[in-house]
Amino acid sequence: VFALTAHADSSDGKRAAYVVDTTLSPHARLHPVPISAVTMGEGFWKPRLEANRTKAIPRLLELLEEHGVVDNFRRLSGRKQCKRRGPLFTDSDLYKWMEAAAWTLAASDDAAVRASLDRIIDEVLAAQCDDGYLNTYFVDERADKRWSDLGRAHELYCAGHLFQAAVAHYRATGSDVLLDGAKRYADYIASEFGPGRRQGAPGHPEIEMALVELYRTTGETRYLELCRFFQDQMKWTELRSLRGHAVRALYACAGGADYLMETGDAAYRTALDAIWTDLTTRKMYITGGAGARHHGEAFGDPFELPNDTAYAETCASIANAMWNWRMLLATGEARYADVMERVLYNGFLSGVSLAGTEYFYVNPLQSDGGHQRQPWYGCTCCPPNVQRTFACLPGYLYSTSPEGLWIHLYDDNVLDWRLEDGTQVRVSIETDYPWGGRVHLAVSPEKTAEFTLFLRIPAWCGEATVRVGGAETTCKAGAYHAIRRAWKAGDDVGLTLAVAAAPVVCDPRVTANRGRVAIARGPLVYCLESVGNEGVNIMTAGLPVGASIESMYQPDLLGGVVELTFDGRWLAYDSQEALYRRVGQTDEPASQQGRIRAVPYYAWANRGDSKMIVWIPLLP
Amino acid sequence: VFALTAHADSSDGKRAAYVVDTTLSPHARLHPVPISAVTMGEGFWKPRLEANRTKAIPRLLELLEEHGVVDNFRRLSGRKQCKRRGPLFTDSDLYKWMEAAAWTLAASDDAAVRASLDRIIDEVLAAQCDDGYLNTYFVDERADKRWSDLGRAHELYCAGHLFQAAVAHYRATGSDVLLDGAKRYADYIASEFGPGRRQGAPGHPEIEMALVELYRTTGETRYLELCRFFQDQMKWTELRSLRGHAVRALYACAGGADYLMETGDAAYRTALDAIWTDLTTRKMYITGGAGARHHGEAFGDPFELPNDTAYAETCASIANAMWNWRMLLATGEARYADVMERVLYNGFLSGVSLAGTEYFYVNPLQSDGGHQRQPWYGCTCCPPNVQRTFACLPGYLYSTSPEGLWIHLYDDNVLDWRLEDGTQVRVSIETDYPWGGRVHLAVSPEKTAEFTLFLRIPAWCGEATVRVGGAETTCKAGAYHAIRRAWKAGDDVGLTLAVAAAPVVCDPRVTANRGRVAIARGPLVYCLESVGNEGVNIMTAGLPVGASIESMYQPDLLGGVVELTFDGRWLAYDSQEALYRRVGQTDEPASQQGRIRAVPYYAWANRGDSKMIVWIPLLP
Repeated sequence: VFALTAHADSSDGKRAAYVVDTTLSPHARLHPVPISAVTMGEGFWKPRLEANRTKAIPRLLELLEEHGVVDNFRRLSGRKQCKRRGPLFTDSDLYKWMEAAAWTLAASDDAAVRASLDRIIDEVLAAQCDDGYLNTYFVDERADKRWSDLGRAHELYCAGHLFQAAVAHYRATGSDVLLDGAKRYADYIASEFGPGRRQGAPGHPEIEMALVELYRTTGETRYLELCRFFQDQMKWTELRSLRGHAVRALYACAGGADYLMETGDAAYRTALDAIWTDLTTRKMYITGGAGARHHGEAFGDPFELPNDTAYAETCASIANAMWNWRMLLATGEARYADVMERVLYNGFLSGVSLAGTEYFYVNPLQSDGGHQRQPWYGCTCCPPNVQRTFACLPGYLYSTSPEGLWIHLYDDNVLDWRLEDGTQVRVSIETDYPWGGRVHLAVSPEKTAEFTLFLRIPAWCGEATVRVGGAETTCKAGAYHAIRRAWKAGDDVGLTLAVAAAPVVCDPRVTANRGRVAIARGPLVYCLESVGNEGVNIMTAGLPVGASIESMYQPDLLGGVVELTFDGRWLAYDSQEALYRRVGQTDEPASQQGRIRAVPYYAWANRGDSKMIVWIPLLP
Repeated sequence: VFALTAHADSSDGKRAAYVVDTTLSPHARLHPVPISAVTMGEGFWKPRLEANRTKAIPRLLELLEEHGVVDNFRRLSGRKQCKRRGPLFTDSDLYKWMEAAAWTLAASDDAAVRASLDRIIDEVLAAQCDDGYLNTYFVDERADKRWSDLGRAHELYCAGHLFQAAVAHYRATGSDVLLDGAKRYADYIASEFGPGRRQGAPGHPEIEMALVELYRTTGETRYLELCRFFQDQMKWTELRSLRGHAVRALYACAGGADYLMETGDAAYRTALDAIWTDLTTRKMYITGGAGARHHGEAFGDPFELPNDTAYAETCASIANAMWNWRMLLATGEARYADVMERVLYNGFLSGVSLAGTEYFYVNPLQSDGGHQRQPWYGCTCCPPNVQRTFACLPGYLYSTSPEGLWIHLYDDNVLDWRLEDGTQVRVSIETDYPWGGRVHLAVSPEKTAEFTLFLRIPAWCGEATVRVGGAETTCKAGAYHAIRRAWKAGDDVGLTLAVAAAPVVCDPRVTANRGRVAIARGPLVYCLESVGNEGVNIMTAGLPVGASIESMYQPDLLGGVVELTFDGRWLAYDSQEALYRRVGQTDEPASQQGRIRAVPYYAWANRGDSKMIVWIPLLP
């Protein structure tokens, strides 16, 4: 039984730029806060979001133009005579850029972004067929090939990204220009596919979550039904583990979670739980990265998590965050926020340069050098995916539930929003997170109101305390700490999370990490990089058992990071002519020792070519 | 221009049970010594060869009977009504068993083996078609499928193994019963394939070396031409590196080396040199094993040599030894004998249990347990391949050239043979090799004769001296030490090879071995095994830089081995619930230390289920 209440824009006078709109989803525990309700302060994320808006989004549009991606649409509308260029799925790259631009407008009325987006929307819609179909590849001389190769052709995938861009544009700006085009296309697809009509499932899932969001935005149940149809076609609820292409599998999970929140279908819950356990206990890198294998961009076997040949596509990290955001909304369970945070600060953020305009497609956890971020890829899915994730980010910080307000991620910001009973509330957060663990919150409801403030205590946090109204309480890690009281304007909350650097050991079934540790501090995974460790053979450097690790904030290093140092030891050897060389005690690799520096994993490869390693030997 | 001189049996009154007969090959530097000329003494190999002859060969024939492999032939001859059983290539398993039995008869007139072999030859030949074709799969109801799927059907592969069995039988016993059948089949294949006739190459090479040996045995140049035809069809001489299925690739190399020795074709030499360099500097395990990947039983990329997921099929080790034996015969270069020895004592010998009747198909260099040898496999290629290798082994110890006598492998034995000028010579060798490096040789020509004695000094040997006629000389490792003098009956030679245990470092491009060492002693690679190391977490145990390694012969351990021990350290941790666990100094994996034991790699998994590791951390 579907929830038949039409979703649609909220009626509270604010633009409801929700990143996944569960406001009316009957099986969602949490409800999001719109991007526009959050004003980012001078914390960790703001410079990155600013670079995304002012540099990366404009630059990527230039590159999309240079590579003919927009011309592909102009060619169809007759505005330009040219050949189609790019991979068959490249429409989706433009759609993801449009989604990024749209979410950006929810946070900032950037005239340049708005103008660019309006122009691109016009170019895209001008290419739409009369029947609603919109794809630059399967038209014209290939028009008779529509839907002929669902497994590989990415038509439904591209459509999904168009729908997501349209939903974002509508939620961020109130304009239904693009949304109308999306609905026409979705209606056409719904008329083609379904019981008694065309059968088949998208080879690259994505459209499922887009259809649910379209349903939430329009109230049209046929979109939810079409989502279910595609999921049934791929027998998705029978899955219990992750195999094959990582991005596809994780997008399918996100779509499953979306469907679950609308229907409460137990088969979806069972599949999602099993797959999530498979991911987080057997197939996820410490960075939140997913997809062990280059071949097929695929998940490996359980515990197959090589570091140097890790694929860990940036898009897979993003898909992982998107899925966990949905699981968090569905359940309010902190474990999903833990995965989101792990991804955002590590496997996602490594995907983009400090400058904000170069991207990794592949995110290894160990490199002998030669791995550098690029502004563009032949398959350029990751850059616009990074951009839409940055643009969404303010929308991930908070949620509401009937009990009160939830805080998932800590950063300097001000929230202006309302409780679910309509009480306006302002929350100001000041923090040095993630470099430090002190979080100061000023909670100001418009009038004194009893509600619960749910503070997320990260699972990595060994010691957390909260001080409110003069009383200090110890908090449980890996959970939301609930503070229920009558809040009044100006109430202060002090949260202290211990962010001490510590080694992390891996399940010994992961061969690559056996006898090794990673070093983490707060939400950040660290790495050794050859740059900054001159004279150290970082590829053999180890951390002695019990060694103390010092933390020091370095404002001029890599945009400002806490650098870690420790007294370590390494073997001095680099290359040899023979594959195997028998050595005596006199020509054994020499043991050397000295101070070793570690920097956040996300920041590596920003100082020219370098070697890098995350998992280093723990020296007994 | 082919060498048109008919080869054939040698005319010196001895049976010429040559393992690869290069006696008349114009481009072979060395010429083999027949198996029958070597009497093995009470050394390392004899008990293994005895177990092979008295236990393994009879037992495998029982299993071949139980699994219907012989019945497949009886079915065709009408001697039994039954269904065909086993994989389509299983004829080759019986042929390899026949080859093993035949070579065994060259060393020992074992009445039971002879009777079994004669019986099986009769069963096989009774199934041969009138046109010479002989294959139990593509006959009868599948007769019209002959040669229809050369890539996968293994027809030519099976034929090759039949030819090799026939050649061995003829050389070992003088009987041409099986050889006549092989010639009829080869003539039929030659009438079917060739320029202007059927095209195509065997999907699984093997027949190439068999055809050259058939040419050497019969003098019929059409067999050599057919070998060349198949090699041309696969454009073999264009290859410069190893890819794909390891056994196939290495058999093709062996066939290429055979063809080179007959023709001197420079294109073959170029290809063989390049491929050999690719193998030995980029794709070979320290055990001599080959084939990094389970998927496709294939070679990996350069330096892709994982230990736990190593495939290193026993057959690939054998193929590697077969190829290097041919390269050694072609050139007289010690580097090929080094690889042969590496394979024989490690990656080959690990393929069989100490009892001699159980086999590994896959030979990993690291195991968490559960890897046990089996008497039989559904694809049972390895067991009979091990058997024919043991049966050949005495034929690998020596060669001759016009300059004199070459000694490749050291073990207790007596050689009764002749120099190439016809002078009879006896060489008696007493040695504790491979446990010790003292080799005593008594050289007795029938009359005083000037010739060179070429003593192989292994590349692993840091220090080698030879004492002859009261003078001691230092020898260069990785070369043949040539002693030219007028030898007279009773001349003594004392060779001392330093076999001290030492760590081996790997090219750092092999990620799995970076910061790790293997321990080797003499020709043997060692491993840590959980059995015998109770209380030690061997999977994290490391060797401190500069640690001294003690050697002690243990007569009751694993059939008698030198055990190595050293003071090492390890981390005490085994399992954990979460994939990643952040630890503090109090719950870090504890550093422990104690005496650690290492045993020869070949001997692992002979004491029940165990964990095993070859490459252990070198602790700086």
